[in-house]
Formats: sequence, C-alpha cells, structure tokens
Amino acid sequence: MYKIVLMRHGESQWNLENRFTGWVDVDLTEKGRQEAARAGEILKAEGFEFDLCYTSVLKRAVRTLWIALDKLDAMYLPVINDWRLNERHYGALQGLNKKETAANFGDEQVLIWRRSYDVPPPALTKDNPMWPGFDRRYSAVNPDTLPLTECLADTVARVVPYWENEIVPNIKAGRKILITAHGNSLRSLIKHLDNVSDKDIVGVNVPTATPLVYELDENMRPIRSYYLGDQEAIKQKMAAVAAQGKSQK
Amino acid sequence: MYKIVLMRHGESQWNLENRFTGWVDVDLTEKGRQEAARAGEILKAEGFEFDLCYTSVLKRAVRTLWIALDKLDAMYLPVINDWRLNERHYGALQGLNKKETAANFGDEQVLIWRRSYDVPPPALTKDNPMWPGFDRRYSAVNPDTLPLTECLADTVARVVPYWENEIVPNIKAGRKILITAHGNSLRSLIKHLDNVSDKDIVGVNVPTATPLVYELDENMRPIRSYYLGDQEAIKQKMAAVAAQGKSQK
Repeated sequence: MYKIVLMRHGESQWNLENRFTGWVDVDLTEKGRQEAARAGEILKAEGFEFDLCYTSVLKRAVRTLWIALDKLDAMYLPVINDWRLNERHYGALQGLNKKETAANFGDEQVLIWRRSYDVPPPALTKDNPMWPGFDRRYSAVNPDTLPLTECLADTVARVVPYWENEIVPNIKAGRKILITAHGNSLRSLIKHLDNVSDKDIVGVNVPTATPLVYELDENMRPIRSYYLGDQEAIKQKMAAVAAQGKSQK
Repeated sequence: MYKIVLMRHGESQWNLENRFTGWVDVDLTEKGRQEAARAGEILKAEGFEFDLCYTSVLKRAVRTLWIALDKLDAMYLPVINDWRLNERHYGALQGLNKKETAANFGDEQVLIWRRSYDVPPPALTKDNPMWPGFDRRYSAVNPDTLPLTECLADTVARVVPYWENEIVPNIKAGRKILITAHGNSLRSLIKHLDNVSDKDIVGVNVPTATPLVYELDENMRPIRSYYLGDQEAIKQKMAAVAAQGKSQK
C-alpha cells in the first residue's frame, strides 16, 4: 500500500480579487501563507514524512510547498518543478474578474468555461504578452506544446501522462510523495485516480491548502482518500470555491 | 566563457552565538534573512538569470537560496540539494562556543582546528545523537561515507568530485548556475578553482550572503572573480569571519 498527499496552494491575490489566474504568476496572500503554514503543521502533527516533492512552476504553488516544508522541518527535500502541474491555462480570460466576466457573458457561459470538461475559454494569440512562449521558465519546452488556452480535458491530457511517467515510478520505488499544485491540475489527477466521469468532475471542488491523502494499491488504484484537518472548515472552503464563478455571491 | 555565482548563507543563529555549527541544522537569524534578500536584490539589479541552483541539505543554505530566488522572481528554478555541499563537519566541537573553546584549548589550538588544512577536530562517536547516520535526510547515503569529523582536506575531498562530476557537466551544457552553500564547502571550491595552496587557504574568508561571481574558461579555469555589492562592507564581513575563532574580539 502506498500513500501520497495532494495539496492545492493557499489563497492567492487573484483568488481574493476573484480573477481568472491560469498561468499568470500571482503570489499568495497573507491568508494563503497562513493556510500553507497550517497545512504543514497538520502534516507534521499527523506524522507525515516525505522523500520527494512535486510542484508547478508557479510561485503560489511553490511558496505553499516551501512554507509547508519549513513547518515539516524538511527544507532539504528534493523538489521537482514542472509546468505540467500548472493550473489550467485560462486563455484570454486570464486577468479578468470572474464576477464581471459573469455579468458580461452570463453565469452560464462562465460556468461552462470554468467547469465544462471540453469547452476551452477564448484562446490567447501568440503576440499576447501572457503567451508562455515569452516566459523564460518555459524556454526548454517545445513552444508548440505550450497552450494558448485549455479546457479541463487539455489539462488532464498533460497531467495524467506526467503522473504516469514521472510520479508513479517514484511511488512504486517506495518514495513518499507530496504534490502541491492547483485546483484544476489536481482535479485532473483526482478524475484519473477516482475514475470520475467528464460530467461529475464539474462538481468536484478542491479546498485550498488542505492535505488530501490518497492510499493506493499496487496498481495505483485508490483504497481510500481523505482530507486532513477540521472537516467542517474543509466543507466551507469547498463551498467557497464552488461559489466563485457566480455574479452574485 | 562561463559565469557562475557562489554564495555563502546569511548569518545563522549560531554564527550570532559564535558556536561551531558544522552539520547541525541551525536556521538563519533575522539579519541573515535580510542579507539573503539583499543578495537576491543585487543579483536581480545586476541582471543575473539562472537555470539551475545547487545547495546543501542544511536549512541556513536552503533558506538563503529560497529568499534570493524569491527576490530574483525565479522560485520556479530547479534546485538540487546535496549533502556534499554541506558545511565542514566539525565533529565533537559542534554546538560549542568558539570563545569558550578558545579559552579552554587556547587560541592556537582552535585556529588549528578551524583553519589548518589537514587536522580534524575531535571526532563524534556513532552513538552521539549528532551523528548524521541518525538523520533521515542522509538515509540514502552509505553510512561509511558520512563523516564523524572533517578537516578542510576532507571537505575538499567530497566537494571537488561533486563539482567535477555533477556541476561542471551542467555548466558545460550552458546552464547558468547559482551555488548557495557554506564557508568551508565554498572555501573548498575556491581552493580548487583558484589553485590555492594548503597553507594560503587558511587566510581566505568568505563573507556571508555576498554573491561571488566566477568567470570560467572552457577548461573551468577562472578568468576573473569578484564579489557583487558594496566593496567596503564586504571587507568588513571578511574581517568579522576571520575574528570569530579568537577568545578576545
């Protein structure tokens, strides 16, 4: 039996401002840092130890991991940063306020962009300064691979092969893994692990900075999964994520 | 021509308390964090960009690197943590106050332990809680390889092969490297790069959290090297390091 921990980053500045973030490199708020610290304390109190950590190349996830590792007294651990764990690319919606976007396009259209499985938001063009090809951190990536927008199916299509090819061999080698990533890269992984349908994944909300433990059998099938921490507070966090796309909240 | 940056960690709690630290995992002081932030700001202002970072498995070096990467807006960079970049192991002196040790054993003996090339301090025994074999972060290392004490020659004997086998190939592959480490692991590297004699290395002092740039030719021979920042302040930092082992300061 294997055990891994998944964790979404803490509140970011644009979570707070209710803006579509995607690959824009927005930092944590002070509350987000406190959430990350609390998550690290919970993992420490529960006796979790890790051998290897994965995160994205976006600082809200990296900082969440760093803060948690500090609290775990494990700053020495190897960390692998990979763009395939990035948040879903939100295309031309990046930077826009979710409520305003909902007011302009309607709650329904925004919910489709946010939560449909296979309808991507409007794409960036390659002359847009937000195009990842302009960003030094992606310089080793084939530009044709870099997204201009993504639906969740696109995110799944990069997260799952990364999981299979890079992370699973390390789990099977007995390494204890912590993955700190984003709402949609984690939903992609949860969809794969729990075999969630394209329809039902829309209703899955991942609370910020809350350790999600998966116990896996030798075929990487979940035996059980559970969030660590105050279960009532976790439910409230999930409801808050679900409410973000609405014009009235 | 290649360019790399070496940096010693900022002031640690035991630097402040003037105690022998070695492999004990002491954290930075607030001043040490500020030094690290300043170093990151200087690197950013001077236009430095990196592709790959190396540091030890000791948090004073890791935190110095993390703070500098934050200031460089480059938290996404790959970081390799390796024990071979650790500080010199100070054996049974670890935890002792330098002045008290000097008062007990004499300035001369302490200077020999601190700065002779090939006289190690008294060794730990393997039942000592400070023995690295008890520490989870070294669990993948052959225990016979883990030191019980080190003279500088011992530190050189682990740092230089790591440099040659792990770091140099990445430099030759065109990657821009930042190494954040410790007074004696960096002196080991400087001795090797600048071909400093066993005698003269005793007089080389590396100031805390001060970027040291080496420009190297294709054979990894230095063309020139220089510290970034206020040159007068750097001299004062070097003098402070040199004075630490004396009973009167």
